[in-house]
Amino acid sequence: MTSDPALVREKLNQVVAILRERDIDLWLTFVRETSQVPDPSLPLVLDLDLTWTSALMTTRCGERIAIVGRLDAADVERLGVYSTVIGYDQSIRGPLREQLLRLDPRQIAVNYSLGDPASDGLTHGMYLLLQDYLDETDLARRLISAESVIAALRGRKSATELARVTSAVRAAEAIFRHVGESIAPGLTEKKIAQLFQRAAVDQGLGLAWGVNHCPTVSAGPDSPVGHAGPGDYALQRGHLLQVDFGVEKDGFVSDLQRTWYVPREGESGPPQLVAAAWEAARRALEAGRAALSPGARGWEVDRAARGALVNAGYEEYMHAFGHHIGRTAHDGATVLGPRWDRYRDSVEGRVEAGNTFAIELGVRVEGYGYIGCEEDVLVTDSGADYLCEPQRELWLLPASKSRG
Amino acid sequence: MTSDPALVREKLNQVVAILRERDIDLWLTFVRETSQVPDPSLPLVLDLDLTWTSALMTTRCGERIAIVGRLDAADVERLGVYSTVIGYDQSIRGPLREQLLRLDPRQIAVNYSLGDPASDGLTHGMYLLLQDYLDETDLARRLISAESVIAALRGRKSATELARVTSAVRAAEAIFRHVGESIAPGLTEKKIAQLFQRAAVDQGLGLAWGVNHCPTVSAGPDSPVGHAGPGDYALQRGHLLQVDFGVEKDGFVSDLQRTWYVPREGESGPPQLVAAAWEAARRALEAGRAALSPGARGWEVDRAARGALVNAGYEEYMHAFGHHIGRTAHDGATVLGPRWDRYRDSVEGRVEAGNTFAIELGVRVEGYGYIGCEEDVLVTDSGADYLCEPQRELWLLPASKSRG
Repeated sequence: MTSDPALVREKLNQVVAILRERDIDLWLTFVRETSQVPDPSLPLVLDLDLTWTSALMTTRCGERIAIVGRLDAADVERLGVYSTVIGYDQSIRGPLREQLLRLDPRQIAVNYSLGDPASDGLTHGMYLLLQDYLDETDLARRLISAESVIAALRGRKSATELARVTSAVRAAEAIFRHVGESIAPGLTEKKIAQLFQRAAVDQGLGLAWGVNHCPTVSAGPDSPVGHAGPGDYALQRGHLLQVDFGVEKDGFVSDLQRTWYVPREGESGPPQLVAAAWEAARRALEAGRAALSPGARGWEVDRAARGALVNAGYEEYMHAFGHHIGRTAHDGATVLGPRWDRYRDSVEGRVEAGNTFAIELGVRVEGYGYIGCEEDVLVTDSGADYLCEPQRELWLLPASKSRG
Repeated sequence: MTSDPALVREKLNQVVAILRERDIDLWLTFVRETSQVPDPSLPLVLDLDLTWTSALMTTRCGERIAIVGRLDAADVERLGVYSTVIGYDQSIRGPLREQLLRLDPRQIAVNYSLGDPASDGLTHGMYLLLQDYLDETDLARRLISAESVIAALRGRKSATELARVTSAVRAAEAIFRHVGESIAPGLTEKKIAQLFQRAAVDQGLGLAWGVNHCPTVSAGPDSPVGHAGPGDYALQRGHLLQVDFGVEKDGFVSDLQRTWYVPREGESGPPQLVAAAWEAARRALEAGRAALSPGARGWEVDRAARGALVNAGYEEYMHAFGHHIGRTAHDGATVLGPRWDRYRDSVEGRVEAGNTFAIELGVRVEGYGYIGCEEDVLVTDSGADYLCEPQRELWLLPASKSRG
């Protein structure tokens, strides 16, 4: 983790307003050995790895207190974002109790959540440890989930964050265009994936998610879709090619899908079956985007897209319509998904202005392959604006036939 | 995370014996979105990132069951280490309950620990989710901590693991020798750190811990010691230079410290005060190493080293004498540390044959700087063998004066 004090300050400046909105007195991030057991909230409040058990607190009155191991204290002080930095030697128990008893917060919001992994960085052992440190005080009974605080903080992109997400989206688009020119029938999924990864390396960019699945590549009707890694399927004429890819740039990511069709001899474009599926997918994506505005609940947005697709006679997709993008490609907070148990409460949250989402869905076309539509958008007061140039038509391969 | 099925199989083959030793029926690793919220135990049992809520189970009878999201199932099957792979669409609840009710284990060991961060990968939200999934069964009451299982599994290095740790130790030693030849008075700590990091990059090696602190560099009497990153202090004649560095190679790490003295004009070696401190530190390290054998408790080993140093008239070090090395530089399990609250129960465990430790201590010499001794060792049936060529004398700078 490389530290970025200006961005941490930008995010911490958002916290007080959020605590007031939620009527919460104190937010505590409680971590240790963060290079091994990272809390996804730590980059928001410190952006530095910590070794010994550490407490990072923000109060609704704007106090910022860091209690960290003696050897970490100098680094935390140097960042200059905490008004009080306390270094300890043998145990955090004393200074932690002392500060909390002094502040006497009505609630202590800590990082756990049943539905949102990005708000669920507190380990169970650390939860028990905290209970132990607060024993014989009334404080242990004041622990509540910080998920509403974290979801708002992650979701409401600051100016710097928005600029970085946008830049990551543009960088991925450029790679789609560049690599698309080199794709031809005969290449395997693995080879196509390699072209994308090389382009990222050449431009000094990271991958938006794990190397085995970034990109995922689906070539033709026999390739399994989803998180399965690229395989040995070779692209052929009459196939659809779908690629799901994103990059990481300056700590922020993009997440896009693009779909190509490889015409057979004599074809100038996709056959009717494929063209109709593409149109249905595009319209369903637009129906979802139209529902994506401040105040909408996650499941309502998903329902708009899912309904449009099913009403057009296609099978529903087995995933959520949308997810936040930011520091990661599944950036927690409200999921634009169906009310399935798998998503728990994460689909009940409301969309806010300043959120950045990837919205996506797909259709399998028997005998041809998979069509995937995925675009990145910014929610404004009035709706959802594309951060990218959306794919409005199927792209054709080889590229010389398809562009210009 | 790149997958290494042969190594996963090697580790899973150790699990059944450990479950029998501990008299535990079932070990469950329960995770989701592991690229964002990684469980340090996951590489031991799968070595692949998972997206949806997933359960990886091993029983004392040798059954291995993976319940994962539909889209992850193909990848898990391809690894070939789980006898049963169940993919689900909407919720893990059904298949998870079904499997656990069928197996009816007396205990379900899950990954939480108050004292050992490497055994504490289960988040509090996931713990609550598991309780919820097991509601109205007797199973929720059978959850216990898996820390004794994980500690044994991490600590007992398999053949492949030992070969990799050894290789990482040798690679770090080679860099110490190579970079040492370029260090001269006038270089700042930051510049010296850069020389080490460049050498790692040139040899295709990763750093053993975070880039801001690997290496740590302490030049002269004014530099703060510990986790503080390298600063702008420039090395001068009459200074001690201490470097704490390790590399990551094929997923395993090393962790070593080396100390140099820069003679003043006319000096051929360190002054008496410095030489005496070095001797005391070395002897204390050897006293600790002598106590490091199978069956010893963590705190007993620390006491031997700490006692030797204090008896020689030096201040005690404010950290543990030793820690496991393996997949990370603080690799969990038994810590060779004092009975301070910060270390909780982690210092009560017993050393086992097959463990690999970094052992370390240091002495500050007023007016000169910091002496740090740190070596990597393998515990055998009869004691602790060096994995490296230990530093037996202070090294002198510039290097031309010190070697040969």
